Amino acid sequence: MKYFAKIKYLGTDFHGFQVQPEHRTVQGELCLALESATGTACKVTGCSRTDAGVHANEFCITVESENATVPPEKLPLAVARFLPPDLSLYYACEAGADFHPRYSVKSKEYLYRIRNSRVNDPFDYGRAWLLNPPISDEALKKMKEAASNIVGKKDFAAFMAEGSDVIDTVREIFYLTVERKEEYIEVRICADGFLYNMVRIIVGTLTEVAYGRIFPEEINSIIESKNRANAGMTAPACGLYLNRVNY
Amino acid sequence: MKYFAKIKYLGTDFHGFQVQPEHRTVQGELCLALESATGTACKVTGCSRTDAGVHANEFCITVESENATVPPEKLPLAVARFLPPDLSLYYACEAGADFHPRYSVKSKEYLYRIRNSRVNDPFDYGRAWLLNPPISDEALKKMKEAASNIVGKKDFAAFMAEGSDVIDTVREIFYLTVERKEEYIEVRICADGFLYNMVRIIVGTLTEVAYGRIFPEEINSIIESKNRANAGMTAPACGLYLNRVNY
Repeated sequence: MKYFAKIKYLGTDFHGFQVQPEHRTVQGELCLALESATGTACKVTGCSRTDAGVHANEFCITVESENATVPPEKLPLAVARFLPPDLSLYYACEAGADFHPRYSVKSKEYLYRIRNSRVNDPFDYGRAWLLNPPISDEALKKMKEAASNIVGKKDFAAFMAEGSDVIDTVREIFYLTVERKEEYIEVRICADGFLYNMVRIIVGTLTEVAYGRIFPEEINSIIESKNRANAGMTAPACGLYLNRVNY
Repeated sequence: MKYFAKIKYLGTDFHGFQVQPEHRTVQGELCLALESATGTACKVTGCSRTDAGVHANEFCITVESENATVPPEKLPLAVARFLPPDLSLYYACEAGADFHPRYSVKSKEYLYRIRNSRVNDPFDYGRAWLLNPPISDEALKKMKEAASNIVGKKDFAAFMAEGSDVIDTVREIFYLTVERKEEYIEVRICADGFLYNMVRIIVGTLTEVAYGRIFPEEINSIIESKNRANAGMTAPACGLYLNRVNY
């Protein structure tokens, strides 16, 4: 049986998605729970690698198990009692033989949550980036302007962290929105793929635009430079959510 | 200086509000942070005692400190860096000499969040009661009917946990609403005061109504019996929020 499934997790206590020896990972916990629920060996493949501390509102996987007999629609309930409380599998169906959770992706949307306030919200600890100095409406407008300069099919090498062995650094960003919602600023970004730390570097750069350290009209030359050092800081993992995966 | 202040906390890692030796409490953490921020001894008085694991979206306190010179409007920012991430003080003003955060209360509203689903939501772990068997619209109607039979000025001894030394068990419940919001059922209750575990026993009783173990028309005789054994179970602390305090 080859299952397609959607999962959700609070990233705080995971060392990212991908299994690592001696670390608690989403893939590791999923495998253990699925093997208990199905009584068979399971191979779990994810749609993306997320970093430690990054959350997922929607993350897609395939589960391959030769001898599993659990019908797909019963998988969420079967596995629920074996999963830890910070991870859930909430949807499953049968996957086509050719389907691959990573290579079949058309686009993914990430959400980044900034709490722009001098005071922490206890309910958002580890779930948003607390950014103290107030961002004015004027500064927000500059963030939006910079965001619109990032959108498109471009070589985003300047927004890629070191340590990645990716060669083709061209990606297409379909939209990148910046919206204030009460004390929060939400950044949404949808692209056909993302480089290592790309969303976090884009968000960090947008906040530097807000604080006047980078100008919106500099974005093009930053992209053209293909030099990471010219972009802004890397925003912390805690504000980042994989929000939607489109096939 | 006598300050009035509003705080907010995630109750999961606190042994309730009230200071206890060798336990982490909201009052204990507040005192430490306020003494660091003001450089003086501070007396903190709360509007209520909340149990371990209970949360507060709005909880009111007074802070008394003979020698504190921090202006009230600057208190939130002054104390922010000394508070732990699961506790915040977000509003302060000067309190009148006669004002008492507990005795001056006119009414308080609690919110109780039930997640009615077979599958956990990782983002609501410790923040809602996961109640598995689906509650039908018919059963929800019965919960609402039972709730309307609880409202009013009555002797609520049947909804008080043992271990309380309260003598007058008459309270006035102004409203008690039960509403479905997607996968959640929210119970809101406002009263002039609450007995020990009263909200949690009322919510537990309402869920037993939903599952047909108690009938809505039995509520009156349960109240009249003044016997805790006749009411339903005590709902867990994790779903409970002190939501609003009215003076």
